[in-house]
Amino acid sequence: MTTTADHSTTIAYESEVRSYSRGWPTTFTHAKGSTLTAEDGREYTDFFAGAGTMNYGHNHPELKKVVIDHFLEDRLVHGLDMFTDVRSQFLETFNNLILEPRDLDYKVAFPGPGGANAVEAALKLARKVTGRESVVNFTNAFHGMTLGALSVTGNSLKRGGAGIPLVHATPMPFDDYFGQIVPDFMYLERLLTDGGSGLNKPAAVIVETVQGEGGINAARAEWLRGLSELCTKHGILLIIDDIQMGCGRTGGFFSFEEAGIKPDMVTLSKSISGYGMPLALTLMKPELDIWEPGEHNGTFRGFAPAFASGTKAFELFWSDDELEKSTIAKGAYIESRFNQIAARYADDHELLVKGRGLARGLGMPSGDLAGKVTTRAFEEGLLVETSGPDDEVVKLLPALTIPEDQLRDGLDIIENAVDEALTA
Amino acid sequence: MTTTADHSTTIAYESEVRSYSRGWPTTFTHAKGSTLTAEDGREYTDFFAGAGTMNYGHNHPELKKVVIDHFLEDRLVHGLDMFTDVRSQFLETFNNLILEPRDLDYKVAFPGPGGANAVEAALKLARKVTGRESVVNFTNAFHGMTLGALSVTGNSLKRGGAGIPLVHATPMPFDDYFGQIVPDFMYLERLLTDGGSGLNKPAAVIVETVQGEGGINAARAEWLRGLSELCTKHGILLIIDDIQMGCGRTGGFFSFEEAGIKPDMVTLSKSISGYGMPLALTLMKPELDIWEPGEHNGTFRGFAPAFASGTKAFELFWSDDELEKSTIAKGAYIESRFNQIAARYADDHELLVKGRGLARGLGMPSGDLAGKVTTRAFEEGLLVETSGPDDEVVKLLPALTIPEDQLRDGLDIIENAVDEALTA
Amino acid sequence: MTTTADHSTTIAYESEVRSYSRGWPTTFTHAKGSTLTAEDGREYTDFFAGAGTMNYGHNHPELKKVVIDHFLEDRLVHGLDMFTDVRSQFLETFNNLILEPRDLDYKVAFPGPGGANAVEAALKLARKVTGRESVVNFTNAFHGMTLGALSVTGNSLKRGGAGIPLVHATPMPFDDYFGQIVPDFMYLERLLTDGGSGLNKPAAVIVETVQGEGGINAARAEWLRGLSELCTKHGILLIIDDIQMGCGRTGGFFSFEEAGIKPDMVTLSKSISGYGMPLALTLMKPELDIWEPGEHNGTFRGFAPAFASGTKAFELFWSDDELEKSTIAKGAYIESRFNQIAARYADDHELLVKGRGLARGLGMPSGDLAGKVTTRAFEEGLLVETSGPDDEVVKLLPALTIPEDQLRDGLDIIENAVDEALTA
Amino acid sequence: MTTTADHSTTIAYESEVRSYSRGWPTTFTHAKGSTLTAEDGREYTDFFAGAGTMNYGHNHPELKKVVIDHFLEDRLVHGLDMFTDVRSQFLETFNNLILEPRDLDYKVAFPGPGGANAVEAALKLARKVTGRESVVNFTNAFHGMTLGALSVTGNSLKRGGAGIPLVHATPMPFDDYFGQIVPDFMYLERLLTDGGSGLNKPAAVIVETVQGEGGINAARAEWLRGLSELCTKHGILLIIDDIQMGCGRTGGFFSFEEAGIKPDMVTLSKSISGYGMPLALTLMKPELDIWEPGEHNGTFRGFAPAFASGTKAFELFWSDDELEKSTIAKGAYIESRFNQIAARYADDHELLVKGRGLARGLGMPSGDLAGKVTTRAFEEGLLVETSGPDDEVVKLLPALTIPEDQLRDGLDIIENAVDEALTA
Repeated sequence: MTTTADHSTTIAYESEVRSYSRGWPTTFTHAKGSTLTAEDGREYTDFFAGAGTMNYGHNHPELKKVVIDHFLEDRLVHGLDMFTDVRSQFLETFNNLILEPRDLDYKVAFPGPGGANAVEAALKLARKVTGRESVVNFTNAFHGMTLGALSVTGNSLKRGGAGIPLVHATPMPFDDYFGQIVPDFMYLERLLTDGGSGLNKPAAVIVETVQGEGGINAARAEWLRGLSELCTKHGILLIIDDIQMGCGRTGGFFSFEEAGIKPDMVTLSKSISGYGMPLALTLMKPELDIWEPGEHNGTFRGFAPAFASGTKAFELFWSDDELEKSTIAKGAYIESRFNQIAARYADDHELLVKGRGLARGLGMPSGDLAGKVTTRAFEEGLLVETSGPDDEVVKLLPALTIPEDQLRDGLDIIENAVDEALTA
Repeated sequence: MTTTADHSTTIAYESEVRSYSRGWPTTFTHAKGSTLTAEDGREYTDFFAGAGTMNYGHNHPELKKVVIDHFLEDRLVHGLDMFTDVRSQFLETFNNLILEPRDLDYKVAFPGPGGANAVEAALKLARKVTGRESVVNFTNAFHGMTLGALSVTGNSLKRGGAGIPLVHATPMPFDDYFGQIVPDFMYLERLLTDGGSGLNKPAAVIVETVQGEGGINAARAEWLRGLSELCTKHGILLIIDDIQMGCGRTGGFFSFEEAGIKPDMVTLSKSISGYGMPLALTLMKPELDIWEPGEHNGTFRGFAPAFASGTKAFELFWSDDELEKSTIAKGAYIESRFNQIAARYADDHELLVKGRGLARGLGMPSGDLAGKVTTRAFEEGLLVETSGPDDEVVKLLPALTIPEDQLRDGLDIIENAVDEALTA
Repeated sequence: MTTTADHSTTIAYESEVRSYSRGWPTTFTHAKGSTLTAEDGREYTDFFAGAGTMNYGHNHPELKKVVIDHFLEDRLVHGLDMFTDVRSQFLETFNNLILEPRDLDYKVAFPGPGGANAVEAALKLARKVTGRESVVNFTNAFHGMTLGALSVTGNSLKRGGAGIPLVHATPMPFDDYFGQIVPDFMYLERLLTDGGSGLNKPAAVIVETVQGEGGINAARAEWLRGLSELCTKHGILLIIDDIQMGCGRTGGFFSFEEAGIKPDMVTLSKSISGYGMPLALTLMKPELDIWEPGEHNGTFRGFAPAFASGTKAFELFWSDDELEKSTIAKGAYIESRFNQIAARYADDHELLVKGRGLARGLGMPSGDLAGKVTTRAFEEGLLVETSGPDDEVVKLLPALTIPEDQLRDGLDIIENAVDEALTA
Repeated sequence: MTTTADHSTTIAYESEVRSYSRGWPTTFTHAKGSTLTAEDGREYTDFFAGAGTMNYGHNHPELKKVVIDHFLEDRLVHGLDMFTDVRSQFLETFNNLILEPRDLDYKVAFPGPGGANAVEAALKLARKVTGRESVVNFTNAFHGMTLGALSVTGNSLKRGGAGIPLVHATPMPFDDYFGQIVPDFMYLERLLTDGGSGLNKPAAVIVETVQGEGGINAARAEWLRGLSELCTKHGILLIIDDIQMGCGRTGGFFSFEEAGIKPDMVTLSKSISGYGMPLALTLMKPELDIWEPGEHNGTFRGFAPAFASGTKAFELFWSDDELEKSTIAKGAYIESRFNQIAARYADDHELLVKGRGLARGLGMPSGDLAGKVTTRAFEEGLLVETSGPDDEVVKLLPALTIPEDQLRDGLDIIENAVDEALTA
C-alpha cells in the first residue's frame, strides 16, 4: 500500500493530548545506539532514551538477534501468564544475576505492560496486606497516569486530568525540599506518632530515589535509609518506584543499592526488556505475596519477546560490574561539565547541578530558559527534554551505553545552547 | 547461558497471583495460527486466542514479515509519542480502512500499552468534558484492573483486591439481566429523571456490547440503541469498551456496528496490533478532544512494531468483508453445535447458548461442571477457558482465522467433555 | 432593649439558604396545640407540626409544667453525657413504656442534638461492626444534611450542596417505585447474590417506613418484612430511620411495629422530647454496641429539659393505646376525605392518596399545582407544606393531638384550595 | 411516676460510647453559676462549663427569667426557620452588639442545633463557592463528629470511628508544632506554590485559634495573621471554628479579634444561647452567600428559647467591655498560678503553661499524671477535664463569670492534686 502519511496525518487524526511531537517536530524512522534518524535523513543524538526506556541504546545488536530469532522461529508472542520457556528463563536469570548477588529476596508479579500497572499492583497489595487505605507520597513525585498511580503523583496538570478528587494520598517533603532548614522526616514522623495529627495511618510510602519527572531530584542515601527505618518502625511498607531509575540508570541495577536498603516492594518497567518493549514487574518480599490467584491480572502481562530480550540484557550487562562503573564515570563527567557551566554563570544565575549516575539535570533559572536550551539543542541535532514543576530542568537520560565522544559532543551542544539562552 | 528454567522456576519465583498457568500446567514455546506447541512437543488447539488478542491467529506470516523487517532494518522501536512514519501510517490506514467506510469520525489517543489505559483515559476525559464524577457501569462488566478501570468492573474478587472502597460507579442491569420481566433501562431512566433518586448524575455510561469476562453476555442491538438514545437524551457520554469484542470478534470491525450506533468514545486494544503486541487506543468524537498536551501520557504509548503490524492487519483483513462474513459463518456453526448439545440435555439441564460472532459461550449448570469441561479439553489438547460470575460459562474466543476443520475438531472435544461432565 | 426587629431584619441578616419563611411570609410568636399565632394576631392551624417535631401539639400544658419546673428549680440544663437524674429517668421510662412492651431490646446512644447526628452515628457503627463501607439507601430517601447523612439522601439539590462527590451509597427502588411491574427487591437481591454485579457489599440498608420528604411514600408491611429478611439473609444491618415517622406518627410508637420487624438499629429525634427540643437517639441491638468510650461524642448529647419532657411524654401518651387508636382513626378520616377529592377529579387528573397514620399526602398533578394549594391554604390560615421530588405532594403532618373539628376545618381549606387549583 | 432510676439504669441502658460519666461517677441534678450539685447533695465547682457551653455560668438568673417567660407565655418553641419575633431580635441584636462594633459584616445561617452542623455548612459552602473539594486542617484540630466535620478532625480514635476512609483533608502543622525550628507556613506555602507538590488546591483552611480538645494550644496572633494573608494570597477561604473559643472565652467575643483578622466564615455554637441550649451559627461574608433556598436545612435550626436567651446574653454581657476585661484578668491569674506550679517542678518536670483568656491548660508529663490530677480534683469537689492527644493537659474552661474566690479555691485543689501526682 502506498501511504502519504506524514506529520500532518498524525496532527489531523491524533488527539490534542500528544506531547513529545510538539517539541520535536520531525518524523523519526530509524534508531541505532544513541542516534535517531529522521525521515529527511537527519541524525539526532539521543540524550533522552525513551524517558529511560532505552538504557542499553536503541536496537542493540545482540538483543536484536534474540528478538528477531524469537519471531523467526514462530515462538509464542502473547501468552498472558501461561507457563512459557522464556518466562521461566527470565525469572531464573533475574533471580541469578540481579536478585541473588544483591542478597535480595523478592517474588515477581507481572502486573501489566507498563509502569503504571506496576504501581497500581504495588499499591493494591500494600493496602491488602495492611488493611489501610492511605499512602504517603512525596512532593514532585511521578508514578503514572492511571487513577491509583495518579493519586500519588504530584503534577497538578496531570492530577487535574483525573476529573475526580484524588484522595488517599498525603504528600510529604522530598529530600532537600527545604534545603537544610528542617531535619529529615520531622513532619512525617511527628504526624505518625501524634495520635491527634489527623494523618490517616498509611499502608505504604512510595518514593523514587531520584525524581525524574520531578526535576532530577536525587535523594541522599542517608535520607533513604532514614525513610526505610521510619517505615520499619511504624509498620508501613516501603515501595521504591524504580521504573525510571532502575535497570542501571544510577549505576547499580537498583537505584536503592547505594543506600543499602531493602524495600518491601519495588516497581520496574521501562528498560527491563532492554529493547523498548512493554514489560513491567512488581517485586514484593515473599511474606507480602498474599494475592489470590487472578486477583490482579491483565492481557499483556508477559510479552514473550520482551522476556527473551530482557533475559539477554541481564546476561550482557549484569554479569559483571563494567556497566555500573562506566555509568558512574559518565555521570561524573556530565556533572563536571555542568559544574563548569554553573561556575561560569555563578555571578548572575544559580544553575543547579542535579542528579546521580546517568540521571542528570541542569536547573535553569526558569522554564522559559530551559525550553530555549532544548529547542536550540534540537536544532543542533540533540534530543533532550526538560522536567521539574516549571519545566525548568534540562534533563539528561542518555543511554548508559552512549559512546564517550557522542556524550561529549552532546554536552557541547547543551553548553552552547545555555550560553545562548543566558547571554541573549 | 544454559538455563534449567522450567515450571518449577516460575512457580518458585512468580507471585501467587498467577492464574492461567494453574489451569494449563504445561510450558508453551511456539505458536502458529490456532495451534500452540508445548515444550514436550505436544500441540494444542487454541480456542482462547490470548483472551481475544490473537484474532488473526498466532504469528500470521504476512504480519510476521512486517514485524521482522521492522526489527531487521533498525527501525525505531520505542519513541513515546514522537512523530514516526509508522504512527502516521497506522493513523492514516485506520482512518481510511476502518473509520471512513463506517462513517465514523474519531480522534485517536494512544493512552498506554494496555486496555486498562484506554479505559482510564476515556473515563478521565468523560469527567473532564462533563464536569461530573460518577459513571454508570453494568452488572458483570469487566474493564480492567487499574483503579479507574476496576471501579467500573463487576467481579467481586477483583474489586476486593483494590484495598480501598471503589466508588464513583453505580451498576445497572445489563441486557437480559432479569429475562424479559422488566422493560429495558426502566431503572436507569427512572433514576435519571427523578430528582430525588439519589443517583449522582453520571458523566458517562461504559458498556461492552458482549461481556466476555462476564460470561459471554451479548446485548441485543435494540438494547444498545436504546442505551445510546438514553445517553443522548440525558447528556451522558456513551463509552463502548471494544477491547475484547472489537477488531472483528463479533463480525464487523467494531462490535457496535450492527446496532448502528455511534458511541462518543471507544476503547480498543488486544487485537489492534494483530500480533499480540501491547497497543491501545481511545477514540473520541472530535468535539470531545479537549485534552491539554500531555495531560495524559505514558512511556509505552506507541510501540512502533505494533503500529507496523497493525497497519498491515488493517490492509490484510479489513480491505473487504471476507473476514466479517467468515466470522459470522463460523459463529453460526458454533451456535448450531451448541444448540445441538443443549437440546440433547434439555430434559435435565438448561445449557445456555450464548454470544455473537466468534465470541461464544456454553453456559453450564455450574462452575464446577464448566471447569470439568475445560480441564478435560486441555487433556485432549484444546485450550478453552471459562468466564462468568461463577466461572460457569465455557467461553470460546477462537482466532477468526481458525480453519474450519480445526474449529470442528475442537468442538468435538468440547462436546465429548460436556457429555462426560453431565453424565458422570 | 427596644427592638425594631421584624421580617426585614431577618431578610437582611440571614443567609439566602432560609426556606420556610419564603412560603409563609409572616412572623410567628405564639403557639398552642395545633394553632400558631402571628405577630399581627392572626391564627393559623398547623398541619405541619414542625415537620413532625410537635406530634403532641405545641406547648402541651403538662409537658410545659415539667419544663418550666426544670428551669425554675435550677436543675442542670446542660451536662454533656454526665449521669443526671433526668437522663436515668428518661432511659428507664423509655425502656419500661416503649421498648419492653414491644419486646424490643436496644442500647441507647445519644449521638447529638438532631436527627442527622443519629443517622451519622448509626452509619458509623454499622461500618465499624461489619468492616464494610457501602450502604444501600432508597430512591427519594431523606436522612439529613451532614455529609454522612446526605450521602444516603436522594434529593439532587441537597446532594449538590455537598460540593464533593457523595459516594459509598447505592440507591435502590423504594416500595412501589415501579408500580407492580417488578417483584420486590428483585434488583437488590440479584446484585447481592451475583458475585459479578459490581455492588460493593453493603454494611447496612437504611430506610424510612414512610418517606416524608420524599413525598409521603408508605412502604407496605410485607415489603418491610421482605427487606428485613433480605438483610438477615445477607448479613446486612437494617437501619430504620424513624426520625419523622416514629413517636406515634403512623399509629404505634415505632412506625415499623405494624410490619412486625426488629431492625438492627433505629434512629429517633424530632418528637422524642415531646416539646420541640433538640434531642436524638440511636438505638442498637446490644450485640452491636461495640463503641469505644467517646468514639462518638458531642456537646449537646443530652439537653436535660428534653429528657424531662420526653419522660413525661412517654407517661402521658404511651401508657396505653389511646393515642395510637386516635391517630389511626384521624388518619383514616384524612384518607377518606382525600379519596373523595381524588374521586371527584378522577376523570381529568390522577390525584394520589398517600400515606399511613397521620402522615398523609395528596399527590397533585404537578409541583406548581401543589404549590397553589399550599399558598392558598396559607392565605386561609392553614400551614401545610409540600414534599416529593417535584414538590408535587401536599403533605399533612398534623399533631396527633389535633382536635377533630380543627382537623376537619383544615381539610375543608385544602379541599377548597384543590378545587381552585384544578378548576382555575 | 415513681422512678428507681439511678446510675445503674443509665449504665444498663446507655451505649458503651458514653464518656464523661466514666470519669465523674455521680449523678448531677442541679446547677447554679459555677456550682453543680449531685443527687447526694454534694457540691462541685465547675471548671469545665459544659466544654465551653456555659460561659455565663449555669442558670444565670436574668437569662433564666427570659427562658421561663418564653415557656410561660406559650411562645413558639420550635419553628424550623420560619420568621419569628425572637429570631429577628436575635439577628438584630447580634448585628448591633457583636458584628457592627467590631466592623464585621456577615450573613448568618442557622445550620442546625450543634457545632458540627455549623462546620458541615461552612465546608459545604466553601466547596460550592470555590468549586474545589479539598480542605486544609491542622494537627490536633477538633471540629465535630459528623462525617464532614470528622474528616477535618485530628484525633485518631474518633477518626477511626468513621468506618470509611476520611479523605479530602490534608493536615498542616498548627502554630508551634515544631517549636521555633521552622518558619510559619513554610510547608503549606511551598505546597501551594509548587505545581508539582501533589496537594489538591484547597477550597478552605479551617482552624481554631485555640485548640481546646487538642490540648489548649493557642495560636499566636501573628500566626493567625500570616494564615489569613496566605489564604487571601492563594484564593483560599479562611474558616475560623469559634465554637469553643468564641462567645468571650478568650476575652473578646470572637477569639480572632486580637489578631485583627476577618475570616471568610466563622462557626459559633456552645455558649451562643448563653443557657446551654442547642444553637449554632455559620457566619459568612455576604459575597459568599450563594446558597440556594433550602440547599442546607434541618429540623432544629432555630430553637426559639435559645434565641431569646441568646439575645438577652448579648445585652447583658456584650453591651460593654466589662466581661472581656474580667476574663483576661482571670485568665492572667490562672496563668500566674500555673507558672508558680511549673516553676516549683522545673527541675524535674517540664509542665507546660498553655492557653489564652479563660481557656487554660497545664501540660503534665503524661496522660496518666494528668488523669491523676483530675481524679483527685473530682474527689475534692472540682470538675476539670483533660485534653490533648495523650490526654496529658489539665484543661480549664471555667465560666467567665466564676467568682474570684471560687476560681482561687479550685486552683488550690488543682495545685494540691498536682503536688500529689508529682510527688507520689
